[in-house]
Amino acid sequence: MTRVVQKFGGSSVADAESIKRVARRVLRTKQEGHDVVVVISAMGDTTDELMDLALQVSPQPAPRELDMLLTSGERMSAALLAMAIADLGATARSFTGSQAGVITTGTHGNARIIDITPGRIQSALDEGDIVIVAGFQGVSQDTKDITTLGRGASDTTAVALAAALRADFCEIYTDVDGVYTADPRIVPSARQIPEIAYEEMLEMAACGAKILHLRCVEYARREDVPVHVRSSFSDKPGTWVKDLADLKGPLMEQALISGVAHDRGEAKITVVGVPDKIGEAAAIFQTVADNEINVDMIVQNVSHVDTSRTDISFTLPKTDGRKAIQALEAIKDRVGFQDLLYNDQIGKVSVVGVGMRSHPGVTARFFSALAEADVNLEMISTSEIRISVVVDADRVDAAVAAAHTAFGLDAESEAVVYAGTGR
Amino acid sequence: MTRVVQKFGGSSVADAESIKRVARRVLRTKQEGHDVVVVISAMGDTTDELMDLALQVSPQPAPRELDMLLTSGERMSAALLAMAIADLGATARSFTGSQAGVITTGTHGNARIIDITPGRIQSALDEGDIVIVAGFQGVSQDTKDITTLGRGASDTTAVALAAALRADFCEIYTDVDGVYTADPRIVPSARQIPEIAYEEMLEMAACGAKILHLRCVEYARREDVPVHVRSSFSDKPGTWVKDLADLKGPLMEQALISGVAHDRGEAKITVVGVPDKIGEAAAIFQTVADNEINVDMIVQNVSHVDTSRTDISFTLPKTDGRKAIQALEAIKDRVGFQDLLYNDQIGKVSVVGVGMRSHPGVTARFFSALAEADVNLEMISTSEIRISVVVDADRVDAAVAAAHTAFGLDAESEAVVYAGTGR
Repeated sequence: MTRVVQKFGGSSVADAESIKRVARRVLRTKQEGHDVVVVISAMGDTTDELMDLALQVSPQPAPRELDMLLTSGERMSAALLAMAIADLGATARSFTGSQAGVITTGTHGNARIIDITPGRIQSALDEGDIVIVAGFQGVSQDTKDITTLGRGASDTTAVALAAALRADFCEIYTDVDGVYTADPRIVPSARQIPEIAYEEMLEMAACGAKILHLRCVEYARREDVPVHVRSSFSDKPGTWVKDLADLKGPLMEQALISGVAHDRGEAKITVVGVPDKIGEAAAIFQTVADNEINVDMIVQNVSHVDTSRTDISFTLPKTDGRKAIQALEAIKDRVGFQDLLYNDQIGKVSVVGVGMRSHPGVTARFFSALAEADVNLEMISTSEIRISVVVDADRVDAAVAAAHTAFGLDAESEAVVYAGTGR
Repeated sequence: MTRVVQKFGGSSVADAESIKRVARRVLRTKQEGHDVVVVISAMGDTTDELMDLALQVSPQPAPRELDMLLTSGERMSAALLAMAIADLGATARSFTGSQAGVITTGTHGNARIIDITPGRIQSALDEGDIVIVAGFQGVSQDTKDITTLGRGASDTTAVALAAALRADFCEIYTDVDGVYTADPRIVPSARQIPEIAYEEMLEMAACGAKILHLRCVEYARREDVPVHVRSSFSDKPGTWVKDLADLKGPLMEQALISGVAHDRGEAKITVVGVPDKIGEAAAIFQTVADNEINVDMIVQNVSHVDTSRTDISFTLPKTDGRKAIQALEAIKDRVGFQDLLYNDQIGKVSVVGVGMRSHPGVTARFFSALAEADVNLEMISTSEIRISVVVDADRVDAAVAAAHTAFGLDAESEAVVYAGTGR
């Protein structure tokens, strides 16, 4: 008996008709012989509407109470889906995150899953029920208060549940067909990726691909839960995210690059003229860390204004820009740097692929393509399976397209560049 | 430290502004030195809207799921009220019925409270919080599923909580000023009752007065929780419902009658020509009982069609009328009665008062007043403190007004009839 966890987002259950459509799909899965657990988001814009209501009674809603309020949305859609499935003749039961055993930290609005103890769900499945779980929520291990899980929550809950229930795989239903080799809005010739390894998807998500949240992919990789990302509006297969060892490539070979990701959400700060003394750089990054700001890429160069000093540049989320500037200005005298530059007109472009591990030509091919497209590189950062560059914001599209073509990912291209061919 | 439970209904929290108004009132109560627990209904028409949504996905919504859905309404308003109070600078926490320890039977849509174990509420109060409890809901003792409590639920929950927390009293906030000596829409000269005994309020509620639910008053009497029924739109005192021994009447005397209630919700069934054999009446009422129909008043007379037979009449809720007729027609041959009559154009009018216990003139005064008002009595039923009559539906108003005047309850009347004066 296969066991599957299916997750449906808000746009898939925007109204009563959509809920009934999802019910039919879920029932079909059950009738095909699977145990089914569904994780569901709130209908359409419900969460935003509840947030509005909260702001009407309090400009800074108490966090515990905001979680009590917002979780009503998922509760409602879970109950409605269970009703719709029952109406089709099957048995279905809905559960809140708490009832489903989703145990979390206590940070309201951004709790993390500590553990899942799905006893009640297991019993319901044993009784032959289809189980619906309200997404986005859990219960705090310490206070027993209801918590909401922050960004990417329902996807992560679905994968975490799949792991806890030893499901065979997890299906994430969304409003696009799957993961693409690049954003189709920038690169019309981008193709849907049939299969991608966990670590590649992790890099894609970390570098700006919005289709699956980083936290969700981390969980999938850690627990080895294959994830099928597909459209809720069709029956076409989507993209399978799996263990590298389970991928079936053409002719047992891997394409050098799986995809190109881009991220417009970062800004760059340059601390100009930092005295070349031990501990100065540490002081700068300690201050940034103390303000709970995540730093992405870092570059240190001889300063262009005074060669006995250094310039230190780093990128960070734009939303943390102001906070970082204020924190650094506060330590300016102590550290003794000369200036602070802020540039939010940047973008990060990354090529990702396990194939590059053993093939050193990727960097050269990438940089050549960018040069030919007249794109200037400001910063570079790499991992075993990813190369990222920071470019001007208005050169992002050109950079993505150039890399996509250079690695043969364009749809009309006959020759996808394979690792084995040496091209 | 006084402890009070306050209940606010849907019309008191119809929108964000109303919620803020309730928050100010609750905070005022706290600042006057009381421990405060608030039981709150869903905002405005939320419950109806959720019901509509349910019917859109399923014409006969699965009961367990309907309870999961509907309870979202109270959860939302409880969280919003807690936010609004926090915004005013106090600490407040909301709890679902389950979190508040409201343990119930398992009947979805009409569960009854078995017990209340308010441990978490008690702790929150000890920490100085204002506590908000979502009304209308609890958790099933057997299945641990969420349940909704049926009619009069939030009022009953408030009183039950007050009992479990040993509160000093319970305040039920509503959209009228209090309990009146008769329905002011029928009797413009009706007056607000300052104090009324539990057993009198019980009779008023059982006989049609809609201001407090029967179940709620029963709980209050059983646990001796004084209930203050008042308006959420003003600060005027309302009606106190208390133990008889705690009432302070003028000159230590009781008015003969506290009030006049009426009920248009009943119908009358007459089983005509029942053979005068042992067991026939029993068969009739057993059949009615087997169909879970509550019978109110019963009269048995010599049949007008055949003096060797009897006619048995009884009243029941109109909503059960069809079911009762069908059940009785099914046993017609077995019992051997001659006809079934159904009359839904009746009304029940009752005078209620502890004073009548020791004063036999009340019945005479009541019947004289009705006769003078040209109102025909069809059926009569009494308890120690109540006399009820069934009259034509279109004579109800006249009957209520006549009784109200006859017992000196009219506002402009100088002489309320007191037990001690012998009038």
